[in-house]
Amino acid sequence: MAIKLNCDMGESFGIWKMGNDEEIMPYIDMANLACGFHASDAVTMSRSVILAKKYNVTIGAHPSYHDLLGFGRRTMLCSLEEIKSIVLYQLGALNAFCRANGTALSYVKPHGALYNDMMRDENIFKAVLNAISSFNKNIKLMVISGPKNEEYEYTAKLYDIKLLFEVFADRNYNDDGSLVSRMEENAIIHEELDVLSRVVNLKEKGFISSINGHMLFLKSDSICVHGDNEKALEFIKLVRKALY
Amino acid sequence: MAIKLNCDMGESFGIWKMGNDEEIMPYIDMANLACGFHASDAVTMSRSVILAKKYNVTIGAHPSYHDLLGFGRRTMLCSLEEIKSIVLYQLGALNAFCRANGTALSYVKPHGALYNDMMRDENIFKAVLNAISSFNKNIKLMVISGPKNEEYEYTAKLYDIKLLFEVFADRNYNDDGSLVSRMEENAIIHEELDVLSRVVNLKEKGFISSINGHMLFLKSDSICVHGDNEKALEFIKLVRKALY
Amino acid sequence: MAIKLNCDMGESFGIWKMGNDEEIMPYIDMANLACGFHASDAVTMSRSVILAKKYNVTIGAHPSYHDLLGFGRRTMLCSLEEIKSIVLYQLGALNAFCRANGTALSYVKPHGALYNDMMRDENIFKAVLNAISSFNKNIKLMVISGPKNEEYEYTAKLYDIKLLFEVFADRNYNDDGSLVSRMEENAIIHEELDVLSRVVNLKEKGFISSINGHMLFLKSDSICVHGDNEKALEFIKLVRKALY
Amino acid sequence: MAIKLNCDMGESFGIWKMGNDEEIMPYIDMANLACGFHASDAVTMSRSVILAKKYNVTIGAHPSYHDLLGFGRRTMLCSLEEIKSIVLYQLGALNAFCRANGTALSYVKPHGALYNDMMRDENIFKAVLNAISSFNKNIKLMVISGPKNEEYEYTAKLYDIKLLFEVFADRNYNDDGSLVSRMEENAIIHEELDVLSRVVNLKEKGFISSINGHMLFLKSDSICVHGDNEKALEFIKLVRKALY
Repeated sequence: MAIKLNCDMGESFGIWKMGNDEEIMPYIDMANLACGFHASDAVTMSRSVILAKKYNVTIGAHPSYHDLLGFGRRTMLCSLEEIKSIVLYQLGALNAFCRANGTALSYVKPHGALYNDMMRDENIFKAVLNAISSFNKNIKLMVISGPKNEEYEYTAKLYDIKLLFEVFADRNYNDDGSLVSRMEENAIIHEELDVLSRVVNLKEKGFISSINGHMLFLKSDSICVHGDNEKALEFIKLVRKALY
Repeated sequence: MAIKLNCDMGESFGIWKMGNDEEIMPYIDMANLACGFHASDAVTMSRSVILAKKYNVTIGAHPSYHDLLGFGRRTMLCSLEEIKSIVLYQLGALNAFCRANGTALSYVKPHGALYNDMMRDENIFKAVLNAISSFNKNIKLMVISGPKNEEYEYTAKLYDIKLLFEVFADRNYNDDGSLVSRMEENAIIHEELDVLSRVVNLKEKGFISSINGHMLFLKSDSICVHGDNEKALEFIKLVRKALY
Repeated sequence: MAIKLNCDMGESFGIWKMGNDEEIMPYIDMANLACGFHASDAVTMSRSVILAKKYNVTIGAHPSYHDLLGFGRRTMLCSLEEIKSIVLYQLGALNAFCRANGTALSYVKPHGALYNDMMRDENIFKAVLNAISSFNKNIKLMVISGPKNEEYEYTAKLYDIKLLFEVFADRNYNDDGSLVSRMEENAIIHEELDVLSRVVNLKEKGFISSINGHMLFLKSDSICVHGDNEKALEFIKLVRKALY
Repeated sequence: MAIKLNCDMGESFGIWKMGNDEEIMPYIDMANLACGFHASDAVTMSRSVILAKKYNVTIGAHPSYHDLLGFGRRTMLCSLEEIKSIVLYQLGALNAFCRANGTALSYVKPHGALYNDMMRDENIFKAVLNAISSFNKNIKLMVISGPKNEEYEYTAKLYDIKLLFEVFADRNYNDDGSLVSRMEENAIIHEELDVLSRVVNLKEKGFISSINGHMLFLKSDSICVHGDNEKALEFIKLVRKALY
């Protein structure tokens, strides 16, 4: 099975534009669409769904904490009832645009701080699963692939939800399969050719190299690429060519 | 067929409470639930849906212009694309809570300025119909009953949407079936017994009296009652007793 | 006295950027700084004030209706108490950043729909004057120059506030000195050289030509230039050269 | 010098009311007025300032993180530039209403999570001091009185700002003068007579009893009372009588 490219899309807000969605959409497989809490608005969501459908891009909800000013990047202490409710609210809103355009919501990938909090706090993970499961058990949840994959799958099965594992081709990994912390200097791989060769290894041989050269065989349904910088389009084209 | 009582519910916001939903819910038939644009938030919506379901109250979406500070009571010039999108966004969000709780969204009643604008501007009316129709043709739209009912039904049929006609028992009507403007002193009927007798006439004989004593035979699927003042609960109980 | 260039600045919001403030600031005389209601936020305001001070640019508050999504371009029905209060709130907030940086708030120019509403409704005009006057009578109010200038000045004097009259060099004027409505095709002058020659006429001879070639001698303390398109910087440099 | 009563006031938002400001204002000495980030809005602020002035109540700004839904009770990771900027923005806005009504902003007391964060993180404390100091060195900062008072004063002096120390009469204190954590069962003293006797001791003898009966001689410029419950008014009258 091919590894899919996923990209955060639909992150404009009102009059303010972000990214080049029109140019990038044709080259990705899965669009994580903002739902109005960290970015986007009703009109932007409508247009984003229409654009994704035009290029047969699978649509995912990209729900977030309620924090436009902080772009959803700040942890906010929420009760589990609130976590479940904000996920339901946002995926429901995006689902309406999918349905109105004859397409479907396929998965959920929480954004920013909510994604990180879900990955480190099992109760938040369960609240997200609970939200999706109560709405539609056919919608998948995207999580970061790593040493705890089996644990995650065990928990997801309790809610009858399938997971999608994503790998970050531009991040360095520790030997145990966890990401090198962003606090470290070498957290991010800036050299595009290095990233590309990692993508090729992942596709052809199923592994990604750790910081010490170990081969990490990480389950990889999808690779996350970033669309919000100037060189993004060229790079995404390269990654796509490598994958197909 | 019985005339149903509808009431705006779920209009708290964050820490701020409005109305006595817990007390009023058992006595109404249809709850117009705010969707986060003029009032409510994800947690409040979740709780409101659960409360409505508990008392077998039919759930309607109560979408609004995006204006918390003005409680959705101020007209905001929106493109038709924006009207359609904000209705879809809000009904989709509420629908998610319905589905998560094993119930269904039954109708849409726009709130405040959006309701008034829809009733006076055919293009806005069509944009609302378009939003609902593209999402689920089984969801009805509630409109004010009056001299243009047939016109409204003709338009709604174009979108394959059924209408629910509501009557305001505490408002005075002109001879042509239109509401006496709120600019006029006698727009609102404050005397509860008068309101009650109007409800009884409507139920038993199918008419409501105009300001000049003419009998107006208005189609009335539902009567709107207000839940946000102190005497509301007692009054709603009385109206309910009169209707059943 | 020289005609000053004024430009809307500081209209980024959170992570979303708008305009090239760093490049444009050196070439303008007066910066209309957004105050958080239609654009900007506390950090953006702080940086905008620092940037303006660096280039000795006079600082004006650019208050708006509370409408981020609509960028303050939609009329919202507000009570006069609310108009006065939102102007006070925003100019007070911006004033704090001026004071914290050892500079001063010099004038107020309402934004978008609030500006238009102020120019067509005397009560709104008075509410804005009242807000400024109650805060600091040394702060001026910028208004559009036209046939009603004397009327405006008479009213402003009641509040002990001085007016600044601005001319739009890229808008066509009717013979009576009013702007050609944006509904008309020829409302805006797109040809830069035409705009430039209008600026020169205004500076050297004190008039701007009406759509029918009449000379309109409009009081012009300031000319408004737009900084939010790609060619803005080049054009602003040209206008500046023409004025100095 | 008398110990002053301070109370959070002006925490309504739009159509949603909170507290009985009209009834409580006559009985307090210092009103901590919300500034629009966790509660209040421009009109509410205007009315709150007018009400405070009517009863000669000293006005303080009650700035918060930007979080209406969470009522400012959730920590949000902000840069120090952002902390300084949001404090400046809010105190500037409130200052405008004071100035417009011929009164003055006397002190700042951060709200909720921002208050707690300021008390535990010296850099946030300094950012708040920096904001106030850059605006007006005559405005004081209210902090919680405890074992670190001298440290706080040393830091505040660096910014040329005077502190106001407040004591919570309804909270239990550890022997070292710190508050018993809200995680503990006995954090709060519910019995009003107990609270009252603590107030009397504080006034007459200058101490408050720790949980183990030790006398804590805490500097106490002000006592914080809560106005948002039904018995608040009666209780505040009692405390006031005890103090005067």
